Amino acid sequence: MSLSIFSAARLDSGCFWKKGKIAKSNMWSDKQLLVRASVASSPQSLRFARKKSEKLQKDVRIAVLGASGYTGSEIVRLLANHPYFGITLMTADRKAGQSLGSVFPHLITQDLPDMVAVKDADFSEVDAVFCCLPHGTTQEIIKGLPKNLKIVDLSADFRLRDILEYEEWYGQPHQAPELQKEAVYGLTEISREDIRRARLVANPGCYPTSIQLPLVPLIRANLIQSKNIIIDAKSGVSGAGRGAKEANLYTEIAEGIHSYGITRHRHVPEIEQGLSEAAQSKITVSFTPHLMPMSRGMQSTIFVEMHSGVTVDDLYEQLKIAYQIDNLVKGASGQALQNLNVMMGLPEDMGLNYLPLFP
Amino acid sequence: MSLSIFSAARLDSGCFWKKGKIAKSNMWSDKQLLVRASVASSPQSLRFARKKSEKLQKDVRIAVLGASGYTGSEIVRLLANHPYFGITLMTADRKAGQSLGSVFPHLITQDLPDMVAVKDADFSEVDAVFCCLPHGTTQEIIKGLPKNLKIVDLSADFRLRDILEYEEWYGQPHQAPELQKEAVYGLTEISREDIRRARLVANPGCYPTSIQLPLVPLIRANLIQSKNIIIDAKSGVSGAGRGAKEANLYTEIAEGIHSYGITRHRHVPEIEQGLSEAAQSKITVSFTPHLMPMSRGMQSTIFVEMHSGVTVDDLYEQLKIAYQIDNLVKGASGQALQNLNVMMGLPEDMGLNYLPLFP
Amino acid sequence: MSLSIFSAARLDSGCFWKKGKIAKSNMWSDKQLLVRASVASSPQSLRFARKKSEKLQKDVRIAVLGASGYTGSEIVRLLANHPYFGITLMTADRKAGQSLGSVFPHLITQDLPDMVAVKDADFSEVDAVFCCLPHGTTQEIIKGLPKNLKIVDLSADFRLRDILEYEEWYGQPHQAPELQKEAVYGLTEISREDIRRARLVANPGCYPTSIQLPLVPLIRANLIQSKNIIIDAKSGVSGAGRGAKEANLYTEIAEGIHSYGITRHRHVPEIEQGLSEAAQSKITVSFTPHLMPMSRGMQSTIFVEMHSGVTVDDLYEQLKIAYQIDNLVKGASGQALQNLNVMMGLPEDMGLNYLPLFP
Amino acid sequence: MSLSIFSAARLDSGCFWKKGKIAKSNMWSDKQLLVRASVASSPQSLRFARKKSEKLQKDVRIAVLGASGYTGSEIVRLLANHPYFGITLMTADRKAGQSLGSVFPHLITQDLPDMVAVKDADFSEVDAVFCCLPHGTTQEIIKGLPKNLKIVDLSADFRLRDILEYEEWYGQPHQAPELQKEAVYGLTEISREDIRRARLVANPGCYPTSIQLPLVPLIRANLIQSKNIIIDAKSGVSGAGRGAKEANLYTEIAEGIHSYGITRHRHVPEIEQGLSEAAQSKITVSFTPHLMPMSRGMQSTIFVEMHSGVTVDDLYEQLKIAYQIDNLVKGASGQALQNLNVMMGLPEDMGLNYLPLFP
Repeated sequence: MSLSIFSAARLDSGCFWKKGKIAKSNMWSDKQLLVRASVASSPQSLRFARKKSEKLQKDVRIAVLGASGYTGSEIVRLLANHPYFGITLMTADRKAGQSLGSVFPHLITQDLPDMVAVKDADFSEVDAVFCCLPHGTTQEIIKGLPKNLKIVDLSADFRLRDILEYEEWYGQPHQAPELQKEAVYGLTEISREDIRRARLVANPGCYPTSIQLPLVPLIRANLIQSKNIIIDAKSGVSGAGRGAKEANLYTEIAEGIHSYGITRHRHVPEIEQGLSEAAQSKITVSFTPHLMPMSRGMQSTIFVEMHSGVTVDDLYEQLKIAYQIDNLVKGASGQALQNLNVMMGLPEDMGLNYLPLFP
Repeated sequence: MSLSIFSAARLDSGCFWKKGKIAKSNMWSDKQLLVRASVASSPQSLRFARKKSEKLQKDVRIAVLGASGYTGSEIVRLLANHPYFGITLMTADRKAGQSLGSVFPHLITQDLPDMVAVKDADFSEVDAVFCCLPHGTTQEIIKGLPKNLKIVDLSADFRLRDILEYEEWYGQPHQAPELQKEAVYGLTEISREDIRRARLVANPGCYPTSIQLPLVPLIRANLIQSKNIIIDAKSGVSGAGRGAKEANLYTEIAEGIHSYGITRHRHVPEIEQGLSEAAQSKITVSFTPHLMPMSRGMQSTIFVEMHSGVTVDDLYEQLKIAYQIDNLVKGASGQALQNLNVMMGLPEDMGLNYLPLFP
Repeated sequence: MSLSIFSAARLDSGCFWKKGKIAKSNMWSDKQLLVRASVASSPQSLRFARKKSEKLQKDVRIAVLGASGYTGSEIVRLLANHPYFGITLMTADRKAGQSLGSVFPHLITQDLPDMVAVKDADFSEVDAVFCCLPHGTTQEIIKGLPKNLKIVDLSADFRLRDILEYEEWYGQPHQAPELQKEAVYGLTEISREDIRRARLVANPGCYPTSIQLPLVPLIRANLIQSKNIIIDAKSGVSGAGRGAKEANLYTEIAEGIHSYGITRHRHVPEIEQGLSEAAQSKITVSFTPHLMPMSRGMQSTIFVEMHSGVTVDDLYEQLKIAYQIDNLVKGASGQALQNLNVMMGLPEDMGLNYLPLFP
Repeated sequence: MSLSIFSAARLDSGCFWKKGKIAKSNMWSDKQLLVRASVASSPQSLRFARKKSEKLQKDVRIAVLGASGYTGSEIVRLLANHPYFGITLMTADRKAGQSLGSVFPHLITQDLPDMVAVKDADFSEVDAVFCCLPHGTTQEIIKGLPKNLKIVDLSADFRLRDILEYEEWYGQPHQAPELQKEAVYGLTEISREDIRRARLVANPGCYPTSIQLPLVPLIRANLIQSKNIIIDAKSGVSGAGRGAKEANLYTEIAEGIHSYGITRHRHVPEIEQGLSEAAQSKITVSFTPHLMPMSRGMQSTIFVEMHSGVTVDDLYEQLKIAYQIDNLVKGASGQALQNLNVMMGLPEDMGLNYLPLFP
């Protein structure tokens, strides 16, 4: 077997945007391993224990900033069946004054407030915020929000602990370094306890999620070497957002594969930050992302070298221990909701119990 | 405007397999009309009124015959969040002895019985059956089932009232004419009362569903002429099932359009049966189906001639009255569940409140 | 048979962008009819009769205006194997100074001049022009070109004979009415003789091409009625060009169907102009275009009523006479090259003898 | 830069099925390297030097065995414009008696003999054979062919020099070991001289082609280490052929990625055979193939470790020397034609000068 020649193993993991598709690709030798987020049953807060009427007044009032993009609309979709989170505010600067249904017809049946410009937003009826705005502008906006709000930020603005590294990779000085210190990196399965106490959570990027989830437990258990980690990642197009770009036109994407951001993708420092922390020493990786002709879904094929004496079965067992195999819409919006559930003392998977769609 | 020249209107309707996609295509002149199934709130049966525990013993024990196909697996997916229907039996002749998760990895998290051959199936722990078997063999199998079972049949075997017509279009004499007499055609919105009292429901075909839902109310209200109805229908590939056929390979389908079954598609008599009944006179249609490079979804573009004095607005208003706009996974499996809900005295949309996935 | 009820027939025809795909959809009842452009062998001009060396100096010097779009690049692709047409000038305002290979890597092997802004273009080394610019601006630019140039214009600017109709549908007064009078509508098979003598050819739109090619011979032969012509057309996304629009993102297009421009598509007056001319009386049509999840290709399903006594076989025979079945990349760029071949006295199919790509 | 950490480089290469798509993905750091087959101009055989008439009697009479599959039909497509190769025999056991146009409508315009069963084939009017049959049965059939025929075999049957290795990977003893000794492995750019003298050429697999073309020159120039070569390959679905398999249905492939044959793909020994020969020592690789939602095309992302002191620029320069950048339909059928051109003393790229199709 070629892999054994240099004591390496290949991990496949997915970002769980589209669960059915991901499940199919989580093959590992002969064993099928579903690398899914562990959903430890958290004690349900008494606050929510009372019986809800069908047409309940939702307890937590939610704002979605940047509701006209793909991550924003996905949060709206997920919240539709959430028993405690109700949307009271949505912003979208270029679509201010419009209904969400006019922008996303698949959400037309939802009873939602019209979208407003973020500068006109009134946060007096809001308890928690999903911030789905572009990196760079996000810092300023979050800095200006009332301090009592709980916030899950889906941008990259608060993911890198080192603000110099932020400046290097994102090309501008960080505008809210004090908030950066407060922010908790929201890889739920890894940092559950910190997230529970957090006010501001930096929701991980999709690539880093798909890579850290399988690797962190293996590094912590000292099963794999921290050098020569090679990641070949494949992403659907929705990860690029809804902005009109020539490169993402149907005609440009269909029937082709695109490598991009080679050696320079902005998710590299985020990945290395997470892995290094797990190893308690500096880890660097080789990361090559590819754009695939599909809308949702992500798969990262990871090549690692095992420590002497370690077998593929050991890796498999470790991951089985680390992750109870469960079904959860991961990726940007699902993980954001998972994080807010944790921050609110709710069961982590509340509103996330959807089965994948296939075919 | 060209349409007004010959007093015609064009209706677009979808079969609702994938709601997000369908919503986008339900354009009608300038007005956006979502032709969605009405979900009248039926009084909830007392039997189900008691509070359920989280890990409830589901009240209605369900068998899914033919669970390894697309309609069978879609029913399993939909039932995952249904509060009262629990699966106790699944059959799949060629996959007997296997778990559903091994055939459909996206369902691997469900706690389900292994599949058995239909001839080995034990129906003693079953209250209701979804029959997802091929036409032709279905008749015999349903004939052999215990008489106390409620059955929704997704095949074509009990859709045509006239068994001679069945023989003409399906090429064999009907094997269960007495059951055919008993069967109720399950276009829920049109025949809700009959379905409520039915033991055996013939679930409509996907094309006929997408065509009858918009046309029947217009015919009943005498707004459109019963001649020159032209239907140009476009279907995703999942409608062809999971059987391995060269014509449905990715390489054959991608980047192309296929017209097929022209003038001879087996859904024609089913469509004409439904429309003729609404008109109380014989209606014939021109029906041209096309296979599209997409997995789910269906759109029927329908060209009709309006009666003199009728406007497009009149049609729009009539459809708005006939259908409360609501969200419901229609098409084969969703409608089957909708029908069993009705048969069981449950709210029609129970377990069907999913928002469409987009993108 | 439903069709016979109202003496109608259904025609399928394609725009021939991607021939292999189109071939599959040209089904007509049981007979497969490939509606392909007739390519009558025109006597080869003496001028080209001499033997060419392998690295020939191409005889006709070609300019491609708007080379960075899909129609422009397709012309470059087709000209690569043309024995007499050589490109000496390419313009692209936003990509001025760049090579075509940097914009279209699939053309990187071609030895081509860098692109310049159209205002900086030097036409002294040009004999003929393919104008692939947007409608509206095209009129002014063509007005300013040297009068000795032969021009095939792929925009809509010179297609409508009635400049008032142009103003109505395109929202601005025509800027070059005298050129409009001179322009010949370039549906090659229908107007071959006029094209041969033309200096300025208005290349037909893709939808109108796919509709006029089958209908004009049937109308001229008086086989079909001129009323109640219904067209359900399905187009790939490349027809929308390479401009970055949200609606044409991969994520918006994949797995869905979009009806658009209903009753108001700008190709309607062009279609009606061509059919009315064939009928020598005013014809109006019902035209519904749909956007398909595929890059290339087009299919128009056409519903017509036959005159009394006419059979589907009669239609089939008439089309067989009108069109020798041959293979030709039709649609925008292929027809443009076909037209310039005719204008130059060359065999109509020169440089167009590619077989379709499948799968 | 992460890559420099362990002196590694990443190579992307494609199998050239669809050139336009591949071109886009051949990115390498900032430099765009098109790894395309070198097409050294071979002196044109005198035999073909005479001027051909337009409707020439083709000089070399070709048989295509297995014409009803994708590789067979692609050869027919490519030969359509070849000046010297003419098809006189086509076989297809299950489609015997049918025309190729009835099986592949996109080829309907070609004037070809009907297909016959291979057992009924008459080879008296044949000079050279493209054998597009499944592995396993191919050996026996080629053993039975007249010895004067030149043969390019597209199956795997003669690719592995060691017949024991063949037996291990393909599960049956080799039936024609003496022919195996005679066969030349047809990676044209690497073995041009041997191919020129060969009677039987084993056409390389698609994955091995995409991997050996970039790696062999680098290994020969001693620029990269022979250990830790990791290959993450991505293939379109046409590579799986036209056989009806559930796994290759549109519905199974669209919107997903499938890893398969991990550590056990049959192309591994073929890849290792070629690389080991270049290195003159045993090389093993880690090879992970993925199935992509696209019809044509292939991309192999290759991770290698450079020898100390070697830079990415050195690799780039070496590949630029080894391969003149040219355009050639590579992959199964294009390389087969390239090989037969070489075997016949013709210019290697004859009949292959097609530009890629994009979009």
